[in-house]
Amino acid sequence: MKHFRNIHDVNDIPDLVMKGVRLSKDIQAKIGQGKTLGLIFLNSSLRTKMSTQKAAMNLGMSCLLVEATSGWPLEFEDGVVMNADRPEHIKEAAAVLSQYCDILGLRAFPSLTDQQKDYQDYVFNQFAKYATVPVISLESAIYHPLQALADMITIEQHKTIAKPKIVLSWAPHIKALPQAVSNSFVQWSRAMNHDLTIACPEGYDLSPEIVGDTPIIHDQRTAFRDADFVYVKNWSSFEKYGQVLSKDKSWMISQENLSVTNSAKVMHCLPVRRNVVIADDVMDSDQALMIPQAANREISAQLILQEILSEL
Amino acid sequence: MKHFRNIHDVNDIPDLVMKGVRLSKDIQAKIGQGKTLGLIFLNSSLRTKMSTQKAAMNLGMSCLLVEATSGWPLEFEDGVVMNADRPEHIKEAAAVLSQYCDILGLRAFPSLTDQQKDYQDYVFNQFAKYATVPVISLESAIYHPLQALADMITIEQHKTIAKPKIVLSWAPHIKALPQAVSNSFVQWSRAMNHDLTIACPEGYDLSPEIVGDTPIIHDQRTAFRDADFVYVKNWSSFEKYGQVLSKDKSWMISQENLSVTNSAKVMHCLPVRRNVVIADDVMDSDQALMIPQAANREISAQLILQEILSEL
Amino acid sequence: MKHFRNIHDVNDIPDLVMKGVRLSKDIQAKIGQGKTLGLIFLNSSLRTKMSTQKAAMNLGMSCLLVEATSGWPLEFEDGVVMNADRPEHIKEAAAVLSQYCDILGLRAFPSLTDQQKDYQDYVFNQFAKYATVPVISLESAIYHPLQALADMITIEQHKTIAKPKIVLSWAPHIKALPQAVSNSFVQWSRAMNHDLTIACPEGYDLSPEIVGDTPIIHDQRTAFRDADFVYVKNWSSFEKYGQVLSKDKSWMISQENLSVTNSAKVMHCLPVRRNVVIADDVMDSDQALMIPQAANREISAQLILQEILSEL
Repeated sequence: MKHFRNIHDVNDIPDLVMKGVRLSKDIQAKIGQGKTLGLIFLNSSLRTKMSTQKAAMNLGMSCLLVEATSGWPLEFEDGVVMNADRPEHIKEAAAVLSQYCDILGLRAFPSLTDQQKDYQDYVFNQFAKYATVPVISLESAIYHPLQALADMITIEQHKTIAKPKIVLSWAPHIKALPQAVSNSFVQWSRAMNHDLTIACPEGYDLSPEIVGDTPIIHDQRTAFRDADFVYVKNWSSFEKYGQVLSKDKSWMISQENLSVTNSAKVMHCLPVRRNVVIADDVMDSDQALMIPQAANREISAQLILQEILSEL
Repeated sequence: MKHFRNIHDVNDIPDLVMKGVRLSKDIQAKIGQGKTLGLIFLNSSLRTKMSTQKAAMNLGMSCLLVEATSGWPLEFEDGVVMNADRPEHIKEAAAVLSQYCDILGLRAFPSLTDQQKDYQDYVFNQFAKYATVPVISLESAIYHPLQALADMITIEQHKTIAKPKIVLSWAPHIKALPQAVSNSFVQWSRAMNHDLTIACPEGYDLSPEIVGDTPIIHDQRTAFRDADFVYVKNWSSFEKYGQVLSKDKSWMISQENLSVTNSAKVMHCLPVRRNVVIADDVMDSDQALMIPQAANREISAQLILQEILSEL
Repeated sequence: MKHFRNIHDVNDIPDLVMKGVRLSKDIQAKIGQGKTLGLIFLNSSLRTKMSTQKAAMNLGMSCLLVEATSGWPLEFEDGVVMNADRPEHIKEAAAVLSQYCDILGLRAFPSLTDQQKDYQDYVFNQFAKYATVPVISLESAIYHPLQALADMITIEQHKTIAKPKIVLSWAPHIKALPQAVSNSFVQWSRAMNHDLTIACPEGYDLSPEIVGDTPIIHDQRTAFRDADFVYVKNWSSFEKYGQVLSKDKSWMISQENLSVTNSAKVMHCLPVRRNVVIADDVMDSDQALMIPQAANREISAQLILQEILSEL
């Protein structure tokens, strides 16, 4: 693997996921000795920051962090007269970081106002373009592949039948959130040939390019029938880009909503607002897989670093 | 040792202190190899952050830091509808951090407004409750045991008689400060069977549960007579909880105040406001033990980490 | 080497620079094993923070970071009653950090208002005075010797004749910037016995003590004639201390300005505002040496750490 920017950097998704399932017992420690991972956070992070550092350390790598969540105003546009509030251009920043690091990771959230730029993954791709070392996504405007890989591993670990029914369900939230986690979940789930259904209110259909022929059902109860896994996530509207069209509380995931499922396992990438997105009666139940999911973030990061290190 | 939340986690205080006195010559390096220490700072830190990281590195451990001094708004209450400004619950946060770390440390200062909650050590204990790995206190609402252990080691290193007279003296400050350092000093000093006296103005008596039968004297000159050690600290009122009742400058520690002591050694946990809490003529004298005390923070942290690692 | 505060800490500059040129092929790895480098940033940093950490890790050192760019209000004056907004004195801070670290680095920018204090390098020197371990400059009020050393190495690597013509040119900027990079470049270039010329508008002459007998030419075109290297930097006025006297766009470095040079290589310490300080047609050309310069920051930091470690 050269980069890990999104699903298109991976040749064989099911093979990669199965490597992840086996990884905890098969750590290739020290393949990263003497190598440095640079982690650039243009937005805040807990799980990604911790798990990716931990994964790097497992492999013997050193980490350099740039936490610029409150101010690394980089210029991304070409040809600009830089006489305003952006003192450094991405061209220099990415090239310089590439001098000190063997692999770079970047987190860069979407604007949620400029759909075209967000869906070009403009900020992330400008960085990747000017970096001269492999680049991994720590969540970009539209993708979160390290999360999706951890999710796929979690499903493999917890499924009890060969092809479980999986529902990605929108849930209410108080703010406008990115579509990145949902987009990547759909992409990776499709690549795994899952039996996937998307449940969301009208107006919340994800990008048609990502959804493809995945069934979308606008009634949660219908979608949930006999589900084995419910993957919960809020996202803002793709159509009316970045808008919050609904805070419908009936979409909050509770034991009542889940009653029509096959005692579905419930997943969420965290952080989760309890009793807004998912009710306590689900969060505190045995059906909740959020903590194993979070633990698998270390596995997915380690696997991707190993794959890239092995080709350096 | 399983946890190091407060003095009650330690079986034999004098034994632990003497281990600390011997530790500098007896480093069990590399007992921490492959282990990760997560340090969570909900409040700012210099000595604790530096010394605990250094201690971990001495033992071969890796550190992961979460510096959330300006914003990790965790929800601590059960059953809340999380639709306001706290996007993550302590239940998930502590459980997730426990996935990536073998030991966790938390710093969480008191409110100084809600005595009941502060004296339950609510924030710290909620974190410890939901963490699934050993937890150490990096200073909680009411305790600072790593400081107290360093203080006890410092006294052992600098005492010239078997049972020196030790006075914990309140001193003025411009702000309302926690009682944590003073509480822990009293607890540990009592457990060491020190000849301890507390000197403070009226209204500044510490919690009766912590003080026990330790003499409290409201006249500094009387308390200081023939003292061998003066441990200086400001704290806000326990009775009129969190209030500043006095800024009486005559309580500032100067050579004049110390003239009735037995050339007492002077201790303070730092940072110290010179010429407010302690005068330059004391700070810059040979009687000042603040720097050796700070150096012993590395020793106390290393000792505690060793104790916990040895039972992992 | 005991310290690396400025050029006066180095015995033989050309010898040090040549060591740097050879260093990439001759890493004395692990000389720093078990040693700790403390990096204190009172001002923000990208290249210095990353490259110095990387250099330390190359040598097997551990790093402890204090990023106090938005708030470590240290008191630097003696005898002050510390009852305002500065809770810790440099005396304690530097002494305590020296307990946990084998070498300390400090970044401390100038006020640009108090020339006398800035040119005493007051903040940096107060820190160095109270530290009890070797101290290295990560850029002080008036010097940036790690940058200058990297610059000298870069010139050696890229020169094609024994004694190239080098011009340090002022260039416009939107803000008042320090003179530190320019001061150190002049000092080190003179110590290397370069053929150095300074080009700047009237009012921008650097400190006479630093400039010595280096020719200053107030016409850029005249200064640039047949130059082999143009080192570009904005600085605020030394005479009218800290003021911006000119934003003359004709001083911006473009291919047109460079047409009278000997196809000069162009250097800048970064970050650079494109099309304000240097035009895109230079930045994106083969003449631009900024990225190799930045890469040499790792070399210069590693060399200095090795020199200091070898005498610890």
